Amino acid sequence: MDTLTAYRSHLLEMAKLGSAISLLGWDQHAHMPKKGVAFRSQVIGKLTKMMFELSVGDELGSYLSELESKPDLSEAEAGSVRRIGETYRRRRAVPPEFIEEQTVARSQAQSAWAKARADNDFSAFEPHLQKMVDFARRLADYYGYEDHPYDALLRDFEPGMTCAELKTIIGPLRDDLVPFLKRLTQDGTKPDASPFRGSFDLETQRRLARRALEVIDYDFEAGGLADVPHPFTTTIGQGDVRVTNRYSEELLGPGLFAALHEGGHALYNQGMQNEGDDLFTLGIAQGASNGIHESQSRMIENQLGRSRPFWKHFAPILAEYFPQFADADPETLYRAANVAEPSLIRVEADEVTYNLHIMLRFEIETGLMDGSIAVSDLPRLWNEAMERYLGIVPPDDAVGVMQDVHWSMGAFGYFPSYMLGNLYAAQMLTTLREQVPDLDEQIASGDLKPFLGWLRSNVHKVGGIHEPKELIERITGETLDASHFVRYVTTKYTDIYKL
Amino acid sequence: MDTLTAYRSHLLEMAKLGSAISLLGWDQHAHMPKKGVAFRSQVIGKLTKMMFELSVGDELGSYLSELESKPDLSEAEAGSVRRIGETYRRRRAVPPEFIEEQTVARSQAQSAWAKARADNDFSAFEPHLQKMVDFARRLADYYGYEDHPYDALLRDFEPGMTCAELKTIIGPLRDDLVPFLKRLTQDGTKPDASPFRGSFDLETQRRLARRALEVIDYDFEAGGLADVPHPFTTTIGQGDVRVTNRYSEELLGPGLFAALHEGGHALYNQGMQNEGDDLFTLGIAQGASNGIHESQSRMIENQLGRSRPFWKHFAPILAEYFPQFADADPETLYRAANVAEPSLIRVEADEVTYNLHIMLRFEIETGLMDGSIAVSDLPRLWNEAMERYLGIVPPDDAVGVMQDVHWSMGAFGYFPSYMLGNLYAAQMLTTLREQVPDLDEQIASGDLKPFLGWLRSNVHKVGGIHEPKELIERITGETLDASHFVRYVTTKYTDIYKL
Repeated sequence: MDTLTAYRSHLLEMAKLGSAISLLGWDQHAHMPKKGVAFRSQVIGKLTKMMFELSVGDELGSYLSELESKPDLSEAEAGSVRRIGETYRRRRAVPPEFIEEQTVARSQAQSAWAKARADNDFSAFEPHLQKMVDFARRLADYYGYEDHPYDALLRDFEPGMTCAELKTIIGPLRDDLVPFLKRLTQDGTKPDASPFRGSFDLETQRRLARRALEVIDYDFEAGGLADVPHPFTTTIGQGDVRVTNRYSEELLGPGLFAALHEGGHALYNQGMQNEGDDLFTLGIAQGASNGIHESQSRMIENQLGRSRPFWKHFAPILAEYFPQFADADPETLYRAANVAEPSLIRVEADEVTYNLHIMLRFEIETGLMDGSIAVSDLPRLWNEAMERYLGIVPPDDAVGVMQDVHWSMGAFGYFPSYMLGNLYAAQMLTTLREQVPDLDEQIASGDLKPFLGWLRSNVHKVGGIHEPKELIERITGETLDASHFVRYVTTKYTDIYKL
Repeated sequence: MDTLTAYRSHLLEMAKLGSAISLLGWDQHAHMPKKGVAFRSQVIGKLTKMMFELSVGDELGSYLSELESKPDLSEAEAGSVRRIGETYRRRRAVPPEFIEEQTVARSQAQSAWAKARADNDFSAFEPHLQKMVDFARRLADYYGYEDHPYDALLRDFEPGMTCAELKTIIGPLRDDLVPFLKRLTQDGTKPDASPFRGSFDLETQRRLARRALEVIDYDFEAGGLADVPHPFTTTIGQGDVRVTNRYSEELLGPGLFAALHEGGHALYNQGMQNEGDDLFTLGIAQGASNGIHESQSRMIENQLGRSRPFWKHFAPILAEYFPQFADADPETLYRAANVAEPSLIRVEADEVTYNLHIMLRFEIETGLMDGSIAVSDLPRLWNEAMERYLGIVPPDDAVGVMQDVHWSMGAFGYFPSYMLGNLYAAQMLTTLREQVPDLDEQIASGDLKPFLGWLRSNVHKVGGIHEPKELIERITGETLDASHFVRYVTTKYTDIYKL
């Protein structure tokens, strides 16, 4: 067997194990009964350990070092070798004892966080958070970096991105968004959100979510939709990319837009698989980065799902499920879907304010990593930054500094992906509009093919072959430029808020 | 680490792998999308191979041979060593090449069977069935036997049972049942089945099935209920025993009684786990045998669920879900639940006729195994036996000799378990009634605890520690005796059919 064949077969074995692990994880959230928790974590632990061994073993290392100098690899194979190779080296750089210690501490930190948040007691979480910060700094040292320890951590989520570059993006973005939000709040006419408030039968919402997924061409023959407490999308295996969702009885928006958001992730994952089995078995069908993945979910949720033409198409569909919308004006629904205002919770934030939540976290994370910020100062720094960015101050730490799970998991460097997703999506939309000039008319008439087809052929089909930097340049002809987002969001909300 | 600890830890690793395999299987039937089939079978194949290696490896063999001569094992440990040891030796007796060949041929035979059944073309299935028969005969040779090759195969499903013993059971049973069925058909007053016919909302049926499972004390915190095309119960792991079900829009019976049937299996599996983690991690929480397992599902479906006192309790519950039953007389529902008549399809057969379907298959299977019956004669022999046992002849082979999946899977020796389940259940009920004299009054008043508690402490909690022969003697004080079943079924139906 030649090295390439052996490499591919090694990756296939990893993909099979990964599939079982994904299913165990999906089931844990979607179906597993409460009394199954303890044993399930042992099962996941066993398979994860086996997976880890396959991903750091000498066997894979020797394939990679041979293939890295092989000149005649296909684009997908070369992309795989680059990507798998980088993960391999990063994992090998970390001593197994570190992983073990961190895993134990993380599990304790997560429990402590959940309890501290419920009790609104930051001091109970503080020592655990300090440990997570220390682990992350050690991890950055193991990984290595040139400029800032945060750079090392970023690569796990957004390969090629640096702390310095993020600063050059965030500065002007903040300077545009903060005053714009102030103008919106002070001078704008807030749309009426009441059409999406009321009482909405859960089973009908489920059917509506299914329909919305059908509208965006999600393939139910290669997936499914299940209820979970916190929505996510997961690739269980080849031909099996599942969406999960949750619904609110009083609000129609969360269930519908979460379905579109997860549907965007799922279209990306399904689209990568549709290029034969190459990308999947080569281990590069998880997307180019977290940020690019998020661009696809935001694109479907916001650029499509919260657009005026979409509501021209979707208003009558909505009325099929909820007859109270039979006479609803699409413009009214469009406006109701686009209320923007400062709020405390990131996951509930709108298009205007979302990035501000991320900037705040970026500021704190980089400070924690370079030591310029102390964990004990976090509640104060958080509240000060909320005031600066959003003009509001959390009433307590539970809805303030303790609102996100990420830090308790030791996931520092993750948050910027969400912001980058927004920026990538807006930049892609600029190019899409240039290449498909009558995009809005097509969407309004219910023809989503040009929109979805563009995403498929420009983003989905290349999967994780390229790093995000290269991908965004290939697609849009330029490097990442936040001005596309600023133009998109200010134009849209100037109109909606009648500024 | 001493041998016992090493043995237990080996079994624990097997249990973890087994849990992932169970989940992959459950999901395949309950949720997996169609396009996920191909890759899923690769994933299951990989884990099954790993599981097989753990179950036949020298490591396990050396633990077993040490522990088999160890005098101070607990009852559960000794039961585990006996059971795991027996499986180990049987698996070791079969060459790996045989397994591989058989697996390939089985997969082809199953496809061929499905197509041949749809086309009503036995000749297209015949060569595949011949192969399955040949494999089964070779398997019997590998396993070894004293008297009849069928004895070897039986041990996979009903340890300790022999062909000769089955013959001594079946003879008198047939001589009682065949004329009784004839009397029923000719002289009896068939109950009115129409109360269970109509139009029944599927979602309401699902909720009713959940309620029925709650009534029998199935623990939803350690399980769940999902829709599948063919109902089954599966242990996913510790604290996680799941029931699956299907529903008919026009008939209420199938969905309700299948839920009770599967619930009976599930109570057994949950009950075995409730004895601490011993039986589960010792690999003896799958029950004493297929027959004993079937006794538990039949007990709940028939001895309880189709009993007069049960319907006194359950009629008002049914009316909560389907208001058309608000004025229904429990006696009418009891009678509607107990229609007995000759029919073509085993899985739809009633308490009186079910065993006759099994006798027919037993007759054919033993003949195929000892060579006294040729595959090509099966359609004719099947129809003749149907005439003899049930007095009806299938109009074609699709609803005749090709109705069951078992033979296409090479599962010869499986069918008697179903019959034994009926016999065990009736014999247990005799003892139960002796020990709980006011059983009917308790059930009618809605107190199922004495009934369920008896099963739990006599059957469930000992799991697979004993072979079925020993178990039935321990529980009832005597060896298997089909006269309990004959008395149960003739008394019940003499009354219902007003003979």
